[in-house]
Amino acid sequence: MAKKKSGAQTIVFPSAPRIAGWASVVGPKEGQGPLGKTFDRVLDDDLMGQESWEKAECQMLSQAADLAMKKAGIAADGIDIMLGGDLLNQIISASFAARSLARPYLGLYGACSTMAESLLLGAMALDGEYADCALCCTCSHFSTAERQYRFPLELGNQRQPSSQWTVTGAGAAILQKEGPIQIVSATIGKVEDLGIKDQDNMGAAMAPAAADTLLRFFADTGMRPQDVDLIVSGDLGMVGQTLTRQLCLQQGLSLDERYIDCGSCIFAPDQDAHSGGSGCGCSASVLNGWLLGRMMDGEIRRMLFMATGALLSPTTVLQGETIPGIAHAVLLEKGVV
Amino acid sequence: MAKKKSGAQTIVFPSAPRIAGWASVVGPKEGQGPLGKTFDRVLDDDLMGQESWEKAECQMLSQAADLAMKKAGIAADGIDIMLGGDLLNQIISASFAARSLARPYLGLYGACSTMAESLLLGAMALDGEYADCALCCTCSHFSTAERQYRFPLELGNQRQPSSQWTVTGAGAAILQKEGPIQIVSATIGKVEDLGIKDQDNMGAAMAPAAADTLLRFFADTGMRPQDVDLIVSGDLGMVGQTLTRQLCLQQGLSLDERYIDCGSCIFAPDQDAHSGGSGCGCSASVLNGWLLGRMMDGEIRRMLFMATGALLSPTTVLQGETIPGIAHAVLLEKGVV
Repeated sequence: MAKKKSGAQTIVFPSAPRIAGWASVVGPKEGQGPLGKTFDRVLDDDLMGQESWEKAECQMLSQAADLAMKKAGIAADGIDIMLGGDLLNQIISASFAARSLARPYLGLYGACSTMAESLLLGAMALDGEYADCALCCTCSHFSTAERQYRFPLELGNQRQPSSQWTVTGAGAAILQKEGPIQIVSATIGKVEDLGIKDQDNMGAAMAPAAADTLLRFFADTGMRPQDVDLIVSGDLGMVGQTLTRQLCLQQGLSLDERYIDCGSCIFAPDQDAHSGGSGCGCSASVLNGWLLGRMMDGEIRRMLFMATGALLSPTTVLQGETIPGIAHAVLLEKGVV
Repeated sequence: MAKKKSGAQTIVFPSAPRIAGWASVVGPKEGQGPLGKTFDRVLDDDLMGQESWEKAECQMLSQAADLAMKKAGIAADGIDIMLGGDLLNQIISASFAARSLARPYLGLYGACSTMAESLLLGAMALDGEYADCALCCTCSHFSTAERQYRFPLELGNQRQPSSQWTVTGAGAAILQKEGPIQIVSATIGKVEDLGIKDQDNMGAAMAPAAADTLLRFFADTGMRPQDVDLIVSGDLGMVGQTLTRQLCLQQGLSLDERYIDCGSCIFAPDQDAHSGGSGCGCSASVLNGWLLGRMMDGEIRRMLFMATGALLSPTTVLQGETIPGIAHAVLLEKGVV
């Protein structure tokens, strides 16, 4: 099997590296949402007894990593590479978690696409035999993101209807040769930018990248939407998910009810999250909680998981730039038992 | 040949992916330094006709990438993956350069270790046959880094003797199956932190990671320093380089005059750069200018290139955290002609 066809953005992993263990840790609001029972741990207090939300975010990532290792039955010294990142400047949550882990570490920045980016690079490392075990992880925290990207929480700013709510959550997956969930292929996204400038509408900014990656995946693999049981985007929210459907349809790709979005699922309408959840931790916690759980329960056999990121910074917005987006996808399959 | 021995941090690339083209673009101060003639392009004006230094930094990275592609004889659509990152929040220089390139893109954050991180992931992608051509690149800009990490330039703050000067520069390398420089192996670093809190002494903060990665490389490969012609660290500067020598010596590894540091080479003593150069662009421009040039001239046949990063953020410093460091290394060889 060719690992990559000329001109394709999708790479195939002939050995299908496995997700051997996974875990999610989320904040209180996420725990009260419709998926609350599917996470491994729901925090009572999103400060976690730390002195700052930034330290809590790091702690949450470490906890998710520890739980995933425990579930995969390995100790920290069994990790060959940690691949991780987060939304904070200089990805401090991931880097400080890597300091505690004390294993080889490669820092990533894909904004909210990081869960898929870490899985695809981890699968590459395992399939290529450069590692026997990889830890792929990411996180976000409402209170750190809000004050870094937007306004001090104390200001109590009103939110736009198209705004999203950054998920307080972390997800971690352990890749090994053996395990129940296979990573079959990965589609590496291009940066797409249709000129959205409204930083309160990230879903619209990310939709073109999401649609492009979906179109590339189906073109590269020759598959049709009905060949997968579930197509999941990361954190487009209600607005971005609708736009993604429309952009795909314009190109002849019809996504039916098998297409869902983590950001549109994680909060209930009465939770005041407006267009839905966002942040690296959104798709990371939903994948490493609800979604892989559904695969284990036999509800889903083949799932295309695509995490989506908006590559803006407060500086680029102030300098009048539009908001580029990116989306990476991995095709997951539950092995036949 | 095994790609990775159990417990090792060094991975071997049996097909030895090649650096087929490379280029460097630097600012005026770097051009006036001792290595000035070895860069592909020296800017007259580090604003490059843009409206902001951030836009100039992005432009500089795109120029380095274009030059490297030209030298490798490929067009943008020949790039299977762009692997890049930089020092700015949300790695906007790399992500906005990726938007112009319009090819599959994976964003990295390794602070000033990014050149080595991108080369090692690119070599993994090529050796594992997931890509035929990878663009590995990074950059930094004195004026963007200064105002993001330290103070407004207009303030004219005094600098400590141990301070370093962020290099205005970009470096890009094109990896392909054929080409003059082989990437033989890579050593993935762990985060090391010996408790340095002084953000005006990054060299001291990074030295433990540099020493650890060097020790791991020699332990993993069974090589001795005399087996390589040159050992190069990224941007430790005078202070960090001296400490790295001492830390290695304490562990029985003696580094003689074949060990140099890009940050200690790029500026002359009278250029007022104190402990030396720093920033992702420091080792990136020196590698993709002077060092690969020396390999082509036959002066160096085998070189261990190790880029070093300090994983702090202004927030972690304000929150009383120490400064973690990381270092990744790649072993390069000039193929026999």
